[in-house]
Amino acid sequence: MSSKLNVGIIGAGRIGRLHAEQLAFRIPQANIVAISDVILEAARRCAADFGIPFAVQDHRAIMNNPNIEAVIICSSTDTHAQMIEEAAAEGKHIFCEKPIALDLNRIHQALKAVEKAGVKLQVGFNRRFDANYARVRQAVEQGEIGEPHLLHIISRDPAPPPIEYIRVSGGIFLDMTIHDFDMARFLIGSEVEEIYAAGGVMVDPAIGEAGDIDTALITLRFENGVIGTIDNSRQAVYGYDQRVEVFGSKGSISTGNNYPNTALVRGGQTIHRDLPLNFFIERYADSYIAEKQAFLDSIQLDITPPVTGRDGLIPVVMGYAARKSYEENRPVKLSEIYP
Amino acid sequence: MSSKLNVGIIGAGRIGRLHAEQLAFRIPQANIVAISDVILEAARRCAADFGIPFAVQDHRAIMNNPNIEAVIICSSTDTHAQMIEEAAAEGKHIFCEKPIALDLNRIHQALKAVEKAGVKLQVGFNRRFDANYARVRQAVEQGEIGEPHLLHIISRDPAPPPIEYIRVSGGIFLDMTIHDFDMARFLIGSEVEEIYAAGGVMVDPAIGEAGDIDTALITLRFENGVIGTIDNSRQAVYGYDQRVEVFGSKGSISTGNNYPNTALVRGGQTIHRDLPLNFFIERYADSYIAEKQAFLDSIQLDITPPVTGRDGLIPVVMGYAARKSYEENRPVKLSEIYP
Amino acid sequence: MSSKLNVGIIGAGRIGRLHAEQLAFRIPQANIVAISDVILEAARRCAADFGIPFAVQDHRAIMNNPNIEAVIICSSTDTHAQMIEEAAAEGKHIFCEKPIALDLNRIHQALKAVEKAGVKLQVGFNRRFDANYARVRQAVEQGEIGEPHLLHIISRDPAPPPIEYIRVSGGIFLDMTIHDFDMARFLIGSEVEEIYAAGGVMVDPAIGEAGDIDTALITLRFENGVIGTIDNSRQAVYGYDQRVEVFGSKGSISTGNNYPNTALVRGGQTIHRDLPLNFFIERYADSYIAEKQAFLDSIQLDITPPVTGRDGLIPVVMGYAARKSYEENRPVKLSEIYP
Amino acid sequence: MSSKLNVGIIGAGRIGRLHAEQLAFRIPQANIVAISDVILEAARRCAADFGIPFAVQDHRAIMNNPNIEAVIICSSTDTHAQMIEEAAAEGKHIFCEKPIALDLNRIHQALKAVEKAGVKLQVGFNRRFDANYARVRQAVEQGEIGEPHLLHIISRDPAPPPIEYIRVSGGIFLDMTIHDFDMARFLIGSEVEEIYAAGGVMVDPAIGEAGDIDTALITLRFENGVIGTIDNSRQAVYGYDQRVEVFGSKGSISTGNNYPNTALVRGGQTIHRDLPLNFFIERYADSYIAEKQAFLDSIQLDITPPVTGRDGLIPVVMGYAARKSYEENRPVKLSEIYP
Repeated sequence: MSSKLNVGIIGAGRIGRLHAEQLAFRIPQANIVAISDVILEAARRCAADFGIPFAVQDHRAIMNNPNIEAVIICSSTDTHAQMIEEAAAEGKHIFCEKPIALDLNRIHQALKAVEKAGVKLQVGFNRRFDANYARVRQAVEQGEIGEPHLLHIISRDPAPPPIEYIRVSGGIFLDMTIHDFDMARFLIGSEVEEIYAAGGVMVDPAIGEAGDIDTALITLRFENGVIGTIDNSRQAVYGYDQRVEVFGSKGSISTGNNYPNTALVRGGQTIHRDLPLNFFIERYADSYIAEKQAFLDSIQLDITPPVTGRDGLIPVVMGYAARKSYEENRPVKLSEIYP
Repeated sequence: MSSKLNVGIIGAGRIGRLHAEQLAFRIPQANIVAISDVILEAARRCAADFGIPFAVQDHRAIMNNPNIEAVIICSSTDTHAQMIEEAAAEGKHIFCEKPIALDLNRIHQALKAVEKAGVKLQVGFNRRFDANYARVRQAVEQGEIGEPHLLHIISRDPAPPPIEYIRVSGGIFLDMTIHDFDMARFLIGSEVEEIYAAGGVMVDPAIGEAGDIDTALITLRFENGVIGTIDNSRQAVYGYDQRVEVFGSKGSISTGNNYPNTALVRGGQTIHRDLPLNFFIERYADSYIAEKQAFLDSIQLDITPPVTGRDGLIPVVMGYAARKSYEENRPVKLSEIYP
Repeated sequence: MSSKLNVGIIGAGRIGRLHAEQLAFRIPQANIVAISDVILEAARRCAADFGIPFAVQDHRAIMNNPNIEAVIICSSTDTHAQMIEEAAAEGKHIFCEKPIALDLNRIHQALKAVEKAGVKLQVGFNRRFDANYARVRQAVEQGEIGEPHLLHIISRDPAPPPIEYIRVSGGIFLDMTIHDFDMARFLIGSEVEEIYAAGGVMVDPAIGEAGDIDTALITLRFENGVIGTIDNSRQAVYGYDQRVEVFGSKGSISTGNNYPNTALVRGGQTIHRDLPLNFFIERYADSYIAEKQAFLDSIQLDITPPVTGRDGLIPVVMGYAARKSYEENRPVKLSEIYP
Repeated sequence: MSSKLNVGIIGAGRIGRLHAEQLAFRIPQANIVAISDVILEAARRCAADFGIPFAVQDHRAIMNNPNIEAVIICSSTDTHAQMIEEAAAEGKHIFCEKPIALDLNRIHQALKAVEKAGVKLQVGFNRRFDANYARVRQAVEQGEIGEPHLLHIISRDPAPPPIEYIRVSGGIFLDMTIHDFDMARFLIGSEVEEIYAAGGVMVDPAIGEAGDIDTALITLRFENGVIGTIDNSRQAVYGYDQRVEVFGSKGSISTGNNYPNTALVRGGQTIHRDLPLNFFIERYADSYIAEKQAFLDSIQLDITPPVTGRDGLIPVVMGYAARKSYEENRPVKLSEIYP
């Protein structure tokens, strides 16, 4: 696999820049040909910083470029499905940030287009590639803890996003929990069939006024009998809190947070250490590299990407099930949402 | 408080012996006058081992003894309510192992008798006196973690009890989770108003055949808005797993297991330590001492015992709510069980 | 071994009271017959608190009591050797607090008397019975870490003793390091042949003015080739710091401090836990019980006590070697001190 | 500092490749112009892998290239001093792997040449840039643990190098401990004035036959009164073991190892985690980036590099002092080696 893959990037916002930088500097396999952004200046800055030859405003310049073999879609969520369809139509492999769309039919259509075109599609659930979670998955898969019985996911952000963002986010279950829904399916290796969601507005009343909640506790029943919880908060004052535990017939495996250093201070008041890495850019930096590496490998080896279109669809279904469960205060089967 | 309290013990089984030994050797304040057991030989062995002057078969010899100021009830669960009533009628202060009864009316009656007699009643929820949980409660009470938002209780036994025991236990929620229900109320300092219980038979099919489940995951909604989970398993192969976390607006506090030593071995395969303390007798030894100390103090200082009759009642109500929720797969309000 | 051993206690100071309380309440095997103290009131208070029938001023009342089978010597250090000789002369088994004496000839004489009388003598190096150190010794003994190569002992007090105490203490090496010298021999199971001691006055100049140092770093060479260090400070502001590590051909084993609870607080500034147990009474409470249990067992089973007279002698030799090394700034062989 | 620095790399062995890759992909500030290696093929492979325009056999092509502003010297140790002198003569800034030379006069000469030329020289003590050690240094510097009293450095390799390497390595003190000598000076911020080294052949007799030892325990006395130890072993079966502790008047700070993940497995035999990162390439990857970043910054900002020529000299002096101390079994002052 010494030959490089020509890549185009659509979107030069925060996550687009992250992908661009990593493709430029960390993934020798990639050759970034062009980057687009509706704000041309953003695309240009990104191109300058990471040595990308072409910066354009119109993403169609990327879609139409016969040189480009794969696109990295980091534009705004409401454009993802359309971008997928356009790229598929041009026979390009697709890496798309999550979620594909918030409308299930729209996702369905986009996946159809991908299927028809026979291109690869990988959805950006990067956490699967994090060393901690990968180790947990390995333990479950290889029977290191026996048959899994119980799952716990703790996933708390350091601080809530701006209220304007909350308003258009689709709600906590589709915006934040969606990553945890993917993690749950990934770690257990089975589908969820029923969800019960409790939650409330505990962090900031303004989030409630915007029609959302900021704290949630979700119970998952998997098809294979495992039961799990997801614990979400929009604000952990000590930083990004990302831990999981899977308990099984032969033991349990759990992960802790990642820290900037291992130093332990024994002082006059407490024994303490510094706060964990603050947010996802630092915490998951390596997993963002690994996911793109895996995507390029899947193209070059012609194998199924490790996160498929279906993996992009189901967490959205779960998000709707959780929302319905929360609103009606009862367990909701996924089949009620997406038959 | 240099004067000693004369105590009688009813029941010389495993937990009766534990109380006898601790009262004899660890609590200078106590003077054990007599012990009774329906199996006279058990009472006699206990008396010999712990220097108790009188061993009798009939508990009434204790109830009628005007010298005895307080009784420790460790007889079989189905006799607790009656013992409480008899002791109350004799004006004796009462320490009673949990649960008071499995029938809510029966509990109600017993509590009435206690109220009428004006004696002290403390129920044996010893874990409240454990240093780990006491520290968590302190943090919550003193606002060290701000307003509490989320609670997690992990409570897993090292191995299931015999199937014969399971059959008469009242089911996992009333037999095992009952301790965690008490812990939940204690840690958060608010009542639970609704419970949703998921669970299954994952450890041993024989437990299912006996009409019970062995694994449970329970969601609690507290009156003050906190949401919590309890995670129960009848079998953690690595030993007794007892951990909690409370997450709040200013941080989180969590506890780990207790271990026989702090030694860490760096070997050729893993970095490891020995398994945690195996079961409740070792794990909670100190809390059993502290609860009795607190009971005797409450008598001598004439203050309310730290675990009241109501604290004995509500976890049973919660057990029924959890069972109903599990059977009907829906959230159940405690008011449906006990108005 | 159901029969009890009649014990007399000499000395009712802090450590005498500790032994009395534990013998009274924690070790069923012991029957305390009498306690003596040159301050009669101290003996009387102790007797009252722990139910000891006789309290006397003159220790000879204990030595002469034919009922008493074993004595626990907790009088002032300068009387230990004499007490041992008197007890040996009366054919009583002896448990003696460390050190036996600060004069090597005096120790020698006392050990001769014990040998001649054929009684048991155990010296109070209680830390050997601590669960952490016992686990390390077990690992070394059973080859769990292969052949031992390197040893580290960290042993820091929470605060220095009063200057008056420092003045008569014999110096840090004989007063404080002596416990660590014993630990070193115990953990490695080999004799030390050479010592190099560095140190200084870093905590309090008054300690220097009293002719002592407060901080030391000692290198030990063992006969079996192992090399080790001991790290001593009279003041660790975070509390009693007692840790060891043994590194060997197949791995390493290390211990941490003991804490009042396992609670971990994630706060806005740090991730922290409470300070460790503050000082030896709390930290080593269980080891004090276990050492006396072992002493009584050695009498009843007629076996060698786990800490012998020689184990009492050698650490004093090491203390002198360390002092000489510090004064002359060169490695000193133990054979220079005690041929 | 947006303008790039033109860099030449001398040496394309393991460490040369590491520097080349990081300069190419991780440090946008650097522009690698050429790489040389006496084995031309090695230089060519490196150039191909990391997009370096020119690969040459003769390092003088780099020295003579007026375009090149700085050189990275990764050739064999015996050429370092000469390379420094050549580069200085050409007015190029110099980053040189440690040690500058094993001959003190040779180092002296090289430093003179640098001083005369007025170029920057940074020596490759990368560990100073590791997040753990940087945090410890910060704590000491800012008084977070008060005045430092004691230092411990544990530095154990996963496995010994080949015997052929041992033979020409200069011995453990100059080959392995040299990094720890630098760390000691860096963490405490004071010079060492006396060293006492104990050690032995415990890992492999062949190392002894090659005239070296494989295990060492070194005592350091600093000018500011601090006392410290360094613990070295050529073989820790559990992997690369790199920990430090500084203890001071207001507390202590210690660091642990870095691990590939945070997963904790609770199994039927032990509670365990995976082994730490195996060796320096993985363990210190980030510190290698940071040291080069700091070097390039020091050129562009015209400030003193964070690791100076003197910082390259003193650890070699310390290595000779340790060797002499070990051979003569006595404390050796650094002034005996280098007045």
